[in-house]
Amino acid sequence: MGEIVKAIQDTYADEISWCYGCGRLNKNGHHFRTGWDDEKTITYFEPSEEHMAIPGFVYGGILASLIDCHGTGSASIYLHHKNGHQIGDGTEPPRFVTAQLTVDYKKPTPQGIELKAYGFGEEIHPKKWKITTEVLAGEDVVATGEVIAVIAPETFLKK
Amino acid sequence: MGEIVKAIQDTYADEISWCYGCGRLNKNGHHFRTGWDDEKTITYFEPSEEHMAIPGFVYGGILASLIDCHGTGSASIYLHHKNGHQIGDGTEPPRFVTAQLTVDYKKPTPQGIELKAYGFGEEIHPKKWKITTEVLAGEDVVATGEVIAVIAPETFLKK
Repeated sequence: MGEIVKAIQDTYADEISWCYGCGRLNKNGHHFRTGWDDEKTITYFEPSEEHMAIPGFVYGGILASLIDCHGTGSASIYLHHKNGHQIGDGTEPPRFVTAQLTVDYKKPTPQGIELKAYGFGEEIHPKKWKITTEVLAGEDVVATGEVIAVIAPETFLKK
Repeated sequence: MGEIVKAIQDTYADEISWCYGCGRLNKNGHHFRTGWDDEKTITYFEPSEEHMAIPGFVYGGILASLIDCHGTGSASIYLHHKNGHQIGDGTEPPRFVTAQLTVDYKKPTPQGIELKAYGFGEEIHPKKWKITTEVLAGEDVVATGEVIAVIAPETFLKK
């Protein structure tokens, strides 16, 4: 399993760390963890056997979930860097939510292989980032995705 | 809970009924069930408490999963109808897979409310349907989605 030493999700405040996809406090969640890897972001994930479309192939909704949380986590990393910070430097990073998610399924995704999601960010508005993602199984790009992530409104964070 | 009397997923062959989203044989899956409701398709779903983004609001990856399986199920229903059949008439319906999934998150989706996904289908190619979906929580449209669904290739079904 690829290892993310410093994941952005590890540094979210407790009250916003319950996400089923990427919250470290959600006991039954996926625990997606996103880090920085030489000019891009990266999230590793190996779906469980039950996360299938048909036996042998991964369910598309899990890939969509991976791309979603990888997207908001990546946006957080990109803006955190832009603000002069690094993951884990003691500064709370910005928290994003997803406005739009698009997934293109390129080929059936085999089970039993660790997936790698790479993310590339672009600021499209002071509060909005576009994260383009490639999901690889081995050397194959099995899905590509795009997340439009916006800074979470105060009302969302204060809940 | 809204009830789907005849769901298309109930009529898929056993070997393609393991989907984590909508397979009736996947013990821990979501068991999305899609039926026909007066000129549109419909899927009901109430996310569990752990399916949260933050406490009180539903995780977007679950909405993406709902729209995904609702989309392929809806495409199956539309083509089944076009072929002169009805759900549960003893004829095996066509099985679709998702080529592209797009979700627009319109507002935070409250937990504890049954969601309704409505689907509207359009044939865009003999083997490809576009399903446009609205997801409602009560009277509020909380998300809209689009699925480009293609008839599952033989190689996929033979696995």
